[in-house]
Amino acid sequence: MKAGSQPPWFTFEIAARDGSARVGRFHTPHGVLETPVFAPVGTQATVKALTPAQLEELGATLVLANTYHLYLRPGDQLVAEMGGLHRFMAWPHPILTDSGGFQVFSLAGLREIDDDGVTFRSHLDGSIHRFTPEKAIRIQENLGADIIMALDECPPPYDRAYNEEALRRTHAWAERSLKAHTRQDQALFGIVQGGVFPDLREQSARFIASLGFPGIAIGGLSVGETKEEMHAMLDVVLPLLPEDRPRYLMGVGTPEDIVEAVRRGVDMFDCVLPTRLARHGAAMLYAGGRLNMRRAEYARDPRPIDETCTCYTCRHFSRAYIRHLLVAKEMLAATLLSIHNVFTLVRLVRDLRQAIREGRLEDWIARWKATRNAAEG
Amino acid sequence: MKAGSQPPWFTFEIAARDGSARVGRFHTPHGVLETPVFAPVGTQATVKALTPAQLEELGATLVLANTYHLYLRPGDQLVAEMGGLHRFMAWPHPILTDSGGFQVFSLAGLREIDDDGVTFRSHLDGSIHRFTPEKAIRIQENLGADIIMALDECPPPYDRAYNEEALRRTHAWAERSLKAHTRQDQALFGIVQGGVFPDLREQSARFIASLGFPGIAIGGLSVGETKEEMHAMLDVVLPLLPEDRPRYLMGVGTPEDIVEAVRRGVDMFDCVLPTRLARHGAAMLYAGGRLNMRRAEYARDPRPIDETCTCYTCRHFSRAYIRHLLVAKEMLAATLLSIHNVFTLVRLVRDLRQAIREGRLEDWIARWKATRNAAEG
Repeated sequence: MKAGSQPPWFTFEIAARDGSARVGRFHTPHGVLETPVFAPVGTQATVKALTPAQLEELGATLVLANTYHLYLRPGDQLVAEMGGLHRFMAWPHPILTDSGGFQVFSLAGLREIDDDGVTFRSHLDGSIHRFTPEKAIRIQENLGADIIMALDECPPPYDRAYNEEALRRTHAWAERSLKAHTRQDQALFGIVQGGVFPDLREQSARFIASLGFPGIAIGGLSVGETKEEMHAMLDVVLPLLPEDRPRYLMGVGTPEDIVEAVRRGVDMFDCVLPTRLARHGAAMLYAGGRLNMRRAEYARDPRPIDETCTCYTCRHFSRAYIRHLLVAKEMLAATLLSIHNVFTLVRLVRDLRQAIREGRLEDWIARWKATRNAAEG
Repeated sequence: MKAGSQPPWFTFEIAARDGSARVGRFHTPHGVLETPVFAPVGTQATVKALTPAQLEELGATLVLANTYHLYLRPGDQLVAEMGGLHRFMAWPHPILTDSGGFQVFSLAGLREIDDDGVTFRSHLDGSIHRFTPEKAIRIQENLGADIIMALDECPPPYDRAYNEEALRRTHAWAERSLKAHTRQDQALFGIVQGGVFPDLREQSARFIASLGFPGIAIGGLSVGETKEEMHAMLDVVLPLLPEDRPRYLMGVGTPEDIVEAVRRGVDMFDCVLPTRLARHGAAMLYAGGRLNMRRAEYARDPRPIDETCTCYTCRHFSRAYIRHLLVAKEMLAATLLSIHNVFTLVRLVRDLRQAIREGRLEDWIARWKATRNAAEG
């Protein structure tokens, strides 16, 4: 690349490797994403309890929004009229929207699924709606995220017959999504499914990889299977994906899972966990695990949540204060804990990037695990 | 004052006058307050839905916290152990605590009042507690605000006999509060009461003014009386108060009331209104009045709440987005509306200070009222 020139959108440059892990730069119309990256979730076009300014300050670079929710409310057409999601939610950095598939299967009343699409009942008002691969693309083009997803089917991970049938549909829908997609300023990612079945995962990885997507997601993990199964599926899928495209592990979220996935070559993550835990009064710890900040033992604890943490919350507030806010049912508790929890994962991927750049990832992981054991011991 | 020297704490310098209105500088251990000043209310040691960083950014300089609430939870002793209120809530600027009197009469279950103090039932758990003037001072010394209040009795404004009896107690309690107060780094303010009765207000103003408090509050207004009655009481009281001490109109709050009080010589205000309205989905307007942001007419309105406003919310978000957050029950709505509403009053007192400095307050008020009439017309 010439000095001063801009690489084309959705170029993925690998800046460093360490084993299977990599540090990359993914170029989007709203800026370059350094990977591995963690995206907090802004389901309804807001990362709950946080302003965009707070997200920027804590170092978030990518935010996920949910197509299913925004389609139902306020409507993708309205978001388009308001200038698209970036402007609507005042997030001028990269945004990713999911396809809506996962929510249709987990949240909405599923009514019917056929090869053409899926009919469902809104969880808001019971009204009937239908998503097809083409419709999911059209909605996401209206929303206008930088990274969008092909509609997929998310079956329960252990049902073999269902996974076979769903995979056939997911693959056909991936091809239809590619055909339907028109916006050049959006990267459409395909999704690998296959439950906990290595042969289905292999088949799916090969097929999705063959379609030429600028990035590939791995779906249907962290949905009830064991850690060993998740790792086994990653070990099957990741070597089959193109090296020069980002790999996105959907819905993952704990420090432990992120570390294990980065080590295997995953580049992108999203999860509701940090903000959801925050609203329930739990603080995530950098080395894994969490503190229930409501506990009486914190009532007079002048220490920050985590003495090694440099987030706004830990720089200013004691455990005693956060517990007081929780006991007093003050909204600020959710904000301060969300800042800490999202920062914790942003900090984790930042430190992982640095360890990869320095070629000392395995050593870094060993020491990171020792920290946790020390904290527990 | 010598160049480079620091005036003693609680000096009140009048920097400019215009009619009865003044611009002042009140020196506190946590910084100089420019008056007229508006203080948002942080009842439970948090201005609801806002971080201290957001309060700083919008220009708040003084925050009020409630003695009654903090005494009950988490306890003033705990706050003292955690380093006092400034450190506990991470607000390094001036703080004011009320005496708890108003909440005992309005929120708690009042059990008994006698010349020595008041017994009440906690609104949290029904437990029985007692405040005396000495106890209210002790609690406020534990909390450690810069400005604290003498315990007063807040009777209904139209009950003459009750107001006479309450005034006698309030005056005796003011003297006892002065005797009980020991911290040199806190300014204890006395409170003028007297309901809607000019002679009682005059008597109270003369008595409280005679005791030498470094500042004087006017209580028992904005509690159900008419605007005319409020203005009449201010017209009786303000000329009797020492020129060289700040005057604080407690619990006031709307742009109209602030303007009328500043014009008469009031220097300090606090009110829950901006944050409470925010939590109910209402945006305050600079010239008075409010917008119910839930209204369907805002669903596709790309404008900010107020096109003349430069707050974070108005610089970044449309009415359509704020309405979406409210309809979707997202916490961010309360945060964004609180930022706008508190900013609106902070901006109002800032503009009033400037108009006073320039000696054109009456002209400024006339034009400000015309803005409102134009907006309504």
